[in-house]
Amino acid sequence: MAAAGALVVSRLAAASAFPPRWGQTPFLRAALHGSAPRPAARVALVLSGCGVYDGTEIHEASAILVHLSRGGAEVQIFAPDVPQMHVIDHTKGQPSESETRNVLTESARIARGKIADLATLSAANHDAAIFPGGFGAAKNLLCCIAPVLAAKVLRGVEVTVGHEQEEGGKWPYAGTAEAIKALGAKHSHVDLKNKVVTTPAFMCETALHHIHDGIGAMVKKVLELTGK
Amino acid sequence: MAAAGALVVSRLAAASAFPPRWGQTPFLRAALHGSAPRPAARVALVLSGCGVYDGTEIHEASAILVHLSRGGAEVQIFAPDVPQMHVIDHTKGQPSESETRNVLTESARIARGKIADLATLSAANHDAAIFPGGFGAAKNLLCCIAPVLAAKVLRGVEVTVGHEQEEGGKWPYAGTAEAIKALGAKHSHVDLKNKVVTTPAFMCETALHHIHDGIGAMVKKVLELTGK
Repeated sequence: MAAAGALVVSRLAAASAFPPRWGQTPFLRAALHGSAPRPAARVALVLSGCGVYDGTEIHEASAILVHLSRGGAEVQIFAPDVPQMHVIDHTKGQPSESETRNVLTESARIARGKIADLATLSAANHDAAIFPGGFGAAKNLLCCIAPVLAAKVLRGVEVTVGHEQEEGGKWPYAGTAEAIKALGAKHSHVDLKNKVVTTPAFMCETALHHIHDGIGAMVKKVLELTGK
Repeated sequence: MAAAGALVVSRLAAASAFPPRWGQTPFLRAALHGSAPRPAARVALVLSGCGVYDGTEIHEASAILVHLSRGGAEVQIFAPDVPQMHVIDHTKGQPSESETRNVLTESARIARGKIADLATLSAANHDAAIFPGGFGAAKNLLCCIAPVLAAKVLRGVEVTVGHEQEEGGKWPYAGTAEAIKALGAKHSHVDLKNKVVTTPAFMCETALHHIHDGIGAMVKKVLELTGK
């Protein structure tokens, strides 16, 4: 698995085997528009497995990739080459004691194979990094529970996981917002000073298309903040 | 795993643990609009695992669910309770010989636990069924490679997996369209007689948001065909 960094390069080169042109959008833009292409925002997406409860929430990751594609971003996907903390049987909602899986290998399911070891990620190569729910730390966009970790890593950062009080059960994780507050993070969507953008995503009990659109608004804001 | 049919009912009842209100959209519609709610189209989504190459393509499944949610459909998700044919290591694109996984259990990652055994699916309970890439047979919508199987199951059905000829590498699976033609299926998006709607999805080498939007157009057509 140590060669995953090199692997992603060879897979990108052999793009015909991987239909969606993630990371190749500038060429598409150049082809679609007569004017000279703008440089695309270079965004790192950091995954933590495949599936809510024991990895990145799949629909959050997919929505982020759809909106980054629509926004013309150049995307590279990363995940840590470490064993999963546990493997959840999603039909039971309980750990499957006998199984072990690797975070990078499982994340590659969402990335359709185009993924690199997180250890190879260099901040100098990216304008923004996105950490969907289930993962820690942050540069530019966080969804779902990750703000709790951002609040630990980035002192004074303003993040959100939804309203602080439950509204008839609509925000079942309101306690999380309070946990962030306790960690010193103010409740807000955009922290311009630290360039952190957050969305509650699946923390809010609403229809999937609203979550998809909310993630779209956050991705749009992130791409604006990159200035590209 | 035989109790999965009952499981989905209890999980739907305990919806607060599962934020997105799949299957509960009629209530949302009633709440959002003053007029009497129309009956929602009841759609079965049939998954075949989690991840392209050894299961349902994740971004196709997610796009289908986003668009069904936007269209106000009532969705139930199914998968067969059978072992996977193989498990693919997506970082290598090769089978992982030592692993065995169950199709229903892995599909539950996409379904966030709200899933039932395919054996419990009754056509009488649904207005349409959707089979994303990687699966066979069809009632109303197919994406990606599944039309090949539909052509085998439903004689004379019109399906599509994209253009019959490659256009500068844009349709790398053009041979599949020819395979369908050879099976007697005409190249088209909508087969009104058999009520089969298809989209090439990841069969076309294009940006992810175009695939997302293409699936949206197909889902919209499917919901129109249900007459609800």
